[in-house]
Amino acid sequence: MDNYNMLIARLAEIGHVNTSIAVLSWDQQCYMPPGGAHERAEQLAVLGKISHEMFVDEATGKLLEAAERDAAGAAPESDVTLTLRAVRRDYDRATKLPTSLVAEIARATTLGHEVWVKAREASDWNQFAPTVSHLLDLSRQVAEYLGYEDRAYDALLDQYEPGMKTRDVERVFDELRPGLVALVRDLAAAPQIDDSVLRRDFDEEQQRIFGEAIIAKIGYDFTNGRQDRAVHPFCTSFGRNDVRITTRYDRNWLPSALMGTIHETGHALYEQGFDPKDDFTPLSGAASLGVHESQSRLWENIIGRSRAFWNVYYQDLQRQFSGVLDDISIDAFYRAVNKVEPSFIRVEADEVTYCLHIMLRFEMEKGMLDGSIAVKDVPEAWNAKMQDYLGITPPNDAEGCLQDVHWSGGMFGYFPTYALGTILSAQLFEKATQDNAQIVPDLERGEFGSLLAWLREKVHHPGRRYLPAELVVRATGEPAQSHSYLKYLNTKFREVYGIC
Amino acid sequence: MDNYNMLIARLAEIGHVNTSIAVLSWDQQCYMPPGGAHERAEQLAVLGKISHEMFVDEATGKLLEAAERDAAGAAPESDVTLTLRAVRRDYDRATKLPTSLVAEIARATTLGHEVWVKAREASDWNQFAPTVSHLLDLSRQVAEYLGYEDRAYDALLDQYEPGMKTRDVERVFDELRPGLVALVRDLAAAPQIDDSVLRRDFDEEQQRIFGEAIIAKIGYDFTNGRQDRAVHPFCTSFGRNDVRITTRYDRNWLPSALMGTIHETGHALYEQGFDPKDDFTPLSGAASLGVHESQSRLWENIIGRSRAFWNVYYQDLQRQFSGVLDDISIDAFYRAVNKVEPSFIRVEADEVTYCLHIMLRFEMEKGMLDGSIAVKDVPEAWNAKMQDYLGITPPNDAEGCLQDVHWSGGMFGYFPTYALGTILSAQLFEKATQDNAQIVPDLERGEFGSLLAWLREKVHHPGRRYLPAELVVRATGEPAQSHSYLKYLNTKFREVYGIC
Repeated sequence: MDNYNMLIARLAEIGHVNTSIAVLSWDQQCYMPPGGAHERAEQLAVLGKISHEMFVDEATGKLLEAAERDAAGAAPESDVTLTLRAVRRDYDRATKLPTSLVAEIARATTLGHEVWVKAREASDWNQFAPTVSHLLDLSRQVAEYLGYEDRAYDALLDQYEPGMKTRDVERVFDELRPGLVALVRDLAAAPQIDDSVLRRDFDEEQQRIFGEAIIAKIGYDFTNGRQDRAVHPFCTSFGRNDVRITTRYDRNWLPSALMGTIHETGHALYEQGFDPKDDFTPLSGAASLGVHESQSRLWENIIGRSRAFWNVYYQDLQRQFSGVLDDISIDAFYRAVNKVEPSFIRVEADEVTYCLHIMLRFEMEKGMLDGSIAVKDVPEAWNAKMQDYLGITPPNDAEGCLQDVHWSGGMFGYFPTYALGTILSAQLFEKATQDNAQIVPDLERGEFGSLLAWLREKVHHPGRRYLPAELVVRATGEPAQSHSYLKYLNTKFREVYGIC
Repeated sequence: MDNYNMLIARLAEIGHVNTSIAVLSWDQQCYMPPGGAHERAEQLAVLGKISHEMFVDEATGKLLEAAERDAAGAAPESDVTLTLRAVRRDYDRATKLPTSLVAEIARATTLGHEVWVKAREASDWNQFAPTVSHLLDLSRQVAEYLGYEDRAYDALLDQYEPGMKTRDVERVFDELRPGLVALVRDLAAAPQIDDSVLRRDFDEEQQRIFGEAIIAKIGYDFTNGRQDRAVHPFCTSFGRNDVRITTRYDRNWLPSALMGTIHETGHALYEQGFDPKDDFTPLSGAASLGVHESQSRLWENIIGRSRAFWNVYYQDLQRQFSGVLDDISIDAFYRAVNKVEPSFIRVEADEVTYCLHIMLRFEMEKGMLDGSIAVKDVPEAWNAKMQDYLGITPPNDAEGCLQDVHWSGGMFGYFPTYALGTILSAQLFEKATQDNAQIVPDLERGEFGSLLAWLREKVHHPGRRYLPAELVVRATGEPAQSHSYLKYLNTKFREVYGIC
């Protein structure tokens, strides 16, 4: 075997260890009995250590260098070149951080999570602030080790959204913010929608049957996946042919499982959709968290909350919950699943207000990192921004700046990916419908194959070949922009709320 | 850390890889979607390779030698000495076989399984015979590498029942055989029991509820375990606090799940019952397959098919399957679950005939290995022995010498452990009731704690400290013997069949 193929074989072995870790984590969240927690932590720690050591081993570095030398003349767009570029990025990032810093982060985030849980219970930011300061300090060190041209936040962002710079995010968010704030304000002035129908009594088993029928129709392949229950819904992959999702059921809140299932299916379609010829290579993977989120958001919101979708499937839903929805028109149901209302909690936010929650966090993170927002002043700054963007003020820290788990895990730079994905979902969908005029009429008949085929070709099959910014240009012909998303929101929600 | 503790820490890491493998295997059999098979095989292969390489690494050998030197003066019964003895056995066995032979066995058994499946479908031993010859040849090589004093079969047996010699098995089986054959003959002359009641319609969910209630009562700890469905029932451990069992339901054959669940619970009680202070050390494990089987057989048969058990729980069973058993007396039910009938298939055999199936296989294996039975003549020899021991002749190879999977996996020397465990179950139970006079009255009240406590102390807590033969003497005061088992069978089944 030549150097390149030896490198690929080595990385495939590491990949199998990583997917084994995913199996153990899935079981931990779906089936593990309570007593198994301690042993599972040990198993995960040992496999994590083995995977990391195999990857950062000098042998990997030498093979990579040798393969790079061998491939020096290969075409820039060839799979060999693109593969080596992706591996080089991963390898450099993994080897740049000193072991002592990685260990200190592991310790600090484990403790940090406990502190956050207690602080949130007590709704007291002051209990959490010293932890945040320490984790910010560690993140600053991470940024220094990883390196950056312009701002330290770039290095953090790059961990989740390769190649993206803070200024790129600012450009997109700055375009989006005024339009969103205006739309929120206009909708708030219109008569509010009554969504109490969604709080009726929906039998859990019927929810499961309906949800699984819908996602099978959408294209989720149950031969290569399954759905289980978990406290926090997620999608996980053990390889392209075993991509699993989880959901949770709330008897008295239909969207929880229904929309959650479609959301996770969006993630799963991406993972199931990598090019088979890339199996067990570094190209078989997601371009970024943002691109991943674009897939879940597209299916959940642009499809799953669309008029076209419910025109086809609402009768099935009524039949599934026999009697429960008989008195509810499709129009009332459609409006209910699209109710917009400023609220405190990000994960419960509707399509229109969601990105404002993210922008707020992005601004807080940048401010904390560069010192322009003192950690102790976070609650005040948070609440002021909530008032600015959404016109509401959290009654306490638990429903404000303490609500998310991310900072306790030192994950500064992660939040923007949620909004970038959301914005991208509209940009991709708009281009897909331009490229193939059949997609819209297909959706109106409840057929999803032509849309999925476009996504497979433009987003899924490329895998990790391109940086997210490259992928967006290749797929849509232009860089990430927010006007498609703003146009989508304005068209849809002004119609839903009857304001033109 | 000193050498000993460094060795223990290293072995604990390897143990965590091995329990991770167990998680992946469990998922493969319980939840994995069909598409996941190929990727799962890769994951298992990589983790298996990592575990093996970590164990046979020179570093392990050097630590072991150093720890042995340091512990040269330790007491022979000390945990340090017993631990090092167990590790030395494992290490020597793992390092004695050349990698090329291990690889050839892996290839041959993978192919062998396919050949066996087809041969069994065709019911044609001749298709399978060349594979068996090749696997026997490989087993002879294994025996030579592992070494033995007396007979090559000793080395094979030792893989599953450490320290046990062929002549030990022969001694026990030779004592047992005439008594069993006589009992089978006497029972065959008595009027046969009608067990058609067990083939009524038993709702699967009610089977599950009843089975789980019973095993919780017996002592299976659902905080540290769970039960799932699988095609082939098994027990697996991911560590003492996560020991899982599986079962399968047959709507029209009650004993399948009910007795299978109690059987696997016997295995699980052993795994859940290792001494907590041995966690993550080489002492936390089963003494042998035979000792493991003694626990499953004891709970399944000596308890689960006893009159005392059903005196307490039969009313609950009737209530669980409301209406189905109302016309059946406890006496009729008890007799039905204890029906004895010579039959062709080992895994369906009753308590009395079971060991005769094993003895037959033990004799076939010895004969094939030493050449006194030609592989091509196996069907003839098999059928002759079936006639001798059970008075019946299989109609074809599929129901005769092709029925078991073991030989296709090269597992010569494994079968005896089933009978040794069965025999040991009676020896242990007899001694337990002698040691603690409260056990029998407790069982008559449906209380299992005093019996379980005796097993915990004498069998479970010792873990891998002692060789099986040592354990048996320590627990019962005498070497393995078959008269307790014969006495148990004669007393029980002559009463069941009304012959005294």
